[in-house]
Amino acid sequence: MPILNKDMTLCISLSARPSNLGTRFHNFLYDELGLNFVYKAFSTEDIAGAVRGIRALGIRGASVSMPFKEAVIPLVDELEPSARAIESVNTIVNDAGRLVAANTDYEAIAELIRANGLDPEARVLVRGSGGMAKAVVAAFRDAGFARLTVLARNAELGPALAERYGYEWLAEDPAPGAADVLVNVTPIGMAGADAETLAFSPEHIAAAAVVFDVVAFPAETPLIRAGRDAGKLVISGAEVHALQAARQFERYTGVALTPEQVARAAAFAREG
Amino acid sequence: MPILNKDMTLCISLSARPSNLGTRFHNFLYDELGLNFVYKAFSTEDIAGAVRGIRALGIRGASVSMPFKEAVIPLVDELEPSARAIESVNTIVNDAGRLVAANTDYEAIAELIRANGLDPEARVLVRGSGGMAKAVVAAFRDAGFARLTVLARNAELGPALAERYGYEWLAEDPAPGAADVLVNVTPIGMAGADAETLAFSPEHIAAAAVVFDVVAFPAETPLIRAGRDAGKLVISGAEVHALQAARQFERYTGVALTPEQVARAAAFAREG
Repeated sequence: MPILNKDMTLCISLSARPSNLGTRFHNFLYDELGLNFVYKAFSTEDIAGAVRGIRALGIRGASVSMPFKEAVIPLVDELEPSARAIESVNTIVNDAGRLVAANTDYEAIAELIRANGLDPEARVLVRGSGGMAKAVVAAFRDAGFARLTVLARNAELGPALAERYGYEWLAEDPAPGAADVLVNVTPIGMAGADAETLAFSPEHIAAAAVVFDVVAFPAETPLIRAGRDAGKLVISGAEVHALQAARQFERYTGVALTPEQVARAAAFAREG
Repeated sequence: MPILNKDMTLCISLSARPSNLGTRFHNFLYDELGLNFVYKAFSTEDIAGAVRGIRALGIRGASVSMPFKEAVIPLVDELEPSARAIESVNTIVNDAGRLVAANTDYEAIAELIRANGLDPEARVLVRGSGGMAKAVVAAFRDAGFARLTVLARNAELGPALAERYGYEWLAEDPAPGAADVLVNVTPIGMAGADAETLAFSPEHIAAAAVVFDVVAFPAETPLIRAGRDAGKLVISGAEVHALQAARQFERYTGVALTPEQVARAAAFAREG
């Protein structure tokens, strides 16, 4: 094991309950690329103190997770367009003392919409109304999608999200066939209590062309499996997570990653 | 290389210009003992922000160097006797949010005085009047040495240090034979500009029984070499540094180190 030295650069994550995904993703690539960086996940209850620490200690970058994505906005010096677009930050880069904030979740979703050639004429159905749903809806809006429906039981957040980006809101599932692109941005299908639940009905899946699940863990949710089994184009939360982490990595280190490197790091991250 | 994980504990150092010694010492032992710890040196210009960061991020321990050893006192929650004795802190331990400060330089010097069986009746001559000289003089005082002279050209710090602990001050070297224990606590002999200078004259060394050099780098200063060549009992700054780092390590991790482990880590630290 190479012993860390004084000149190594520290990047961190800040959340209430850290996972191991980011730590393993970044440290794997630091090691593979021989970069003198180290990545450490932190839980905190004092986001202002943590950001003060980033400045005082010269920490190079920070991934920001729940529940701090909006709370950090007044604590940084500049918002990139990706963070301004949704008023939510998941990445802080410390450029010689100046803290610049971005949202690589939004960037990753926008990139996956492009890379998969999704048709802006398609009818999109987005289930969810939380912070990540905002990133999804904004990315579809900014990619020129005119027909999108926010499907959310929450009668405050649901219509607010839809209205903000000029779309419709539904509290209850429409009839199958109402959408070409199904997007799940709720915890349905996530490892835990809802692990076995399918976020959209088999009839909805059968009538759609694309199934997009933003749940990052497991990589193969019931929705992704059902979409694949039905021969649909599938986009997984694992892809979103890997891509957003890659965009953080590139900002922190200045090193551009190949898709193969991203895939290797993502696979490694999921092993532990 | 084992990939770091989210649960690893971070310890740090805070100084204006970090060296590699502590980073290598601690990380070597974390690795050898299989502890899920990592150590990183930081330079900072904002000690209050750095200590706020220690709290917010749950950093377990911090070594504090120049010029922050006194500035951190109002920022911690409790001073251990070693820090109170000299109003100087070189170690902060974060016990579940409570910051407890100690001075392991003082402890290491006290331990070396005991371990080498220095005679409290001996006449001690201490060259220097800075922060480390305070730790040295206090350790001799607390070990019961009645006859000690502070030798320092600085006409403010010199007499202040001597008076504080009830000793004499000299601005100019006394005649050879005036001291049994010679202690250098100035940068004389340190790697750099003064690397070739002998901190006490050969005549002083010949007339003394013990030569003690607090300069940590290199391990073999001209004074240590001259003392050894003259057959004197020598105590080196390398020993002080290793021992104070060991006491920090034990506080951070709760793991007691054997003298062999300390020696191995210190040797490794000096290689890089």
